[in-house]
Amino acid sequence: MQVREALSPATFIGVRGGDIISFGSGQPDLPPPPEAYRVLGDYREFKYGLIQGTADLREALADRYPDATADSFVITNGASEALDLALRLIGRTCAAGRRRVLMARPYYYSYPPMVEYAGLEPVYTDTVDGRIDLADFAAKVNDCAAVIVNSPANPTGRVQPAETLQRIEELTRDLGIYLLSDAVYKDLVYVSDTHTLAGPHVITIDSFSKTYAMCGYRIGYLWSEDARFVQGIVEMKTHTSMNTGILGQRMALAALGAPASYIEDQLVIWRQRRDLIYAGLSDLGLDLWKPEGAFYVLPKVEDPYRFVSDLFERHQVITYLGEWFGAPDRVRLSYALDSDKIEAGLERIGSYLARR
Amino acid sequence: MQVREALSPATFIGVRGGDIISFGSGQPDLPPPPEAYRVLGDYREFKYGLIQGTADLREALADRYPDATADSFVITNGASEALDLALRLIGRTCAAGRRRVLMARPYYYSYPPMVEYAGLEPVYTDTVDGRIDLADFAAKVNDCAAVIVNSPANPTGRVQPAETLQRIEELTRDLGIYLLSDAVYKDLVYVSDTHTLAGPHVITIDSFSKTYAMCGYRIGYLWSEDARFVQGIVEMKTHTSMNTGILGQRMALAALGAPASYIEDQLVIWRQRRDLIYAGLSDLGLDLWKPEGAFYVLPKVEDPYRFVSDLFERHQVITYLGEWFGAPDRVRLSYALDSDKIEAGLERIGSYLARR
Repeated sequence: MQVREALSPATFIGVRGGDIISFGSGQPDLPPPPEAYRVLGDYREFKYGLIQGTADLREALADRYPDATADSFVITNGASEALDLALRLIGRTCAAGRRRVLMARPYYYSYPPMVEYAGLEPVYTDTVDGRIDLADFAAKVNDCAAVIVNSPANPTGRVQPAETLQRIEELTRDLGIYLLSDAVYKDLVYVSDTHTLAGPHVITIDSFSKTYAMCGYRIGYLWSEDARFVQGIVEMKTHTSMNTGILGQRMALAALGAPASYIEDQLVIWRQRRDLIYAGLSDLGLDLWKPEGAFYVLPKVEDPYRFVSDLFERHQVITYLGEWFGAPDRVRLSYALDSDKIEAGLERIGSYLARR
Repeated sequence: MQVREALSPATFIGVRGGDIISFGSGQPDLPPPPEAYRVLGDYREFKYGLIQGTADLREALADRYPDATADSFVITNGASEALDLALRLIGRTCAAGRRRVLMARPYYYSYPPMVEYAGLEPVYTDTVDGRIDLADFAAKVNDCAAVIVNSPANPTGRVQPAETLQRIEELTRDLGIYLLSDAVYKDLVYVSDTHTLAGPHVITIDSFSKTYAMCGYRIGYLWSEDARFVQGIVEMKTHTSMNTGILGQRMALAALGAPASYIEDQLVIWRQRRDLIYAGLSDLGLDLWKPEGAFYVLPKVEDPYRFVSDLFERHQVITYLGEWFGAPDRVRLSYALDSDKIEAGLERIGSYLARR
């Protein structure tokens, strides 16, 4: 089908305006804290910053992680660059016979290509209703160079239970395998059963894109207790992109100064939207998991290609193919838009489904 | 010697303050045009931008290149990311037996590691007094996947003659080899004998760091007539870093609106500084080439390790080891600092040399 060739995430990223309702790109619609913008007026810096990131931002981040120091952070062009650099470094340093990277499926769509770009091989553990199957995970992890865990997960909206995360933390530690913890949704959790991955083998990847709605500014970071790993990342970044944009880093530092209520208030809104879209799609008869974190639902639909292309072309509703995330019988909807739009979008989806 | 291990460009990038005089990092000290800052006050965007770069910035750039369209540009995290992505794409698509990338030596220090990170092999053509030797170039280019040309060059300050550049353009075109033209210093030229590399096989890489003094913001770009190549870059960037920072792009667009006198006035200042440092180092008895572009000199010195480390530790003067640029008998000085500082730095270098 032509649609299959024509559609990719790049088709939709940054597309907006007109009467389009986008359940596509995973970006908050609520703005960053006003603190972030307040620094703009008299900002006049222009020189290169430290490759590792500005010291004040790294110090402020270190205050938020137990036993962390500013030296253990690298500020990157979004979580994407942090993960890309981590994989590239692992690809350059891992043993020849140990080039696999294990990830849960469905996965964030950039994981497999990034793993391949780094000369590594993606391997998958299929989730059961979005939950990692520890037996399958344990069977596949032995000869891996690294594991990627994303909890809360894009695109499933699942949070892995604390017991699962603790077991993965132990298993990878005992085997000497890097555990890449993509924690960009860590502040958007609607359940209590969770665990923060930690340890000398854990590379934590996070960003200001989701918690502080700063997607467009591309400020992410990586932190690790492994000083050699951090040094290796800085060395690579010296050549591949140099410092992360200085003004975005200044805004990120200011955002960290926002009151705790900024995040708490957002979480109330996210939960309301979660309830709205979950109820709405369930009422339309779709089969989906109730999200436990992040801001995505991943319902099963008949003929996902037609669903995505017809909704876009005839109803101006953007949704993403589950196939991009390793879930070919599903579609992904981000509910990062206001309730009125979610309701209007649900109506359009309802009339599309009714007409078929 | 310990210094050899301890020193790297990352030692110095972003280091400033106190009584340090830095001939190190290659960044303008004169500020960006005021137009760039004027957009900050009421900027309130925060969402993802197009992966390829904002349309208005690409359109403004297209107006500055003959026969270019906005579609043929990708905005990147500095010229570094443009070159890194270009090499990675070439590394993924080139024939198995054709993985070499040819560059002139001395070279910009990031070229060899970037080539290696992309799974390619750097090969070198040694320049004669900083000029490309066409016979050696022609002898080595045949089995290459790509060539990198940097004119004006960092670290030599040389501009390759028009005839050389035209011949390289023809040779690579006839052989079907990508010609990566790192043109970040194209607006800082003190001679008239030059040529702009162009053609369907040319990938032009440029940035706002040098011409518009926006180093810290990391706004670069790549442009090519090869639509498939551009598409391949966008596809990779979708996964590896997503859009380049939206606010830096907005500032870059505003910078393009600065009057032509902004660049012209700067060139007068660069030329004065060039004359000052060239005369000063010559008077100290150092052997160096007169710069024809960019803002570097690359004098020969006895024991470069000692020169760089003693000047830094005892005289608080930052210089770079020529070794990082493939010129082990030389040191690099950037003259991107005001005349008073250049003179003070020359004095310190003079007293260091006198005391040895």
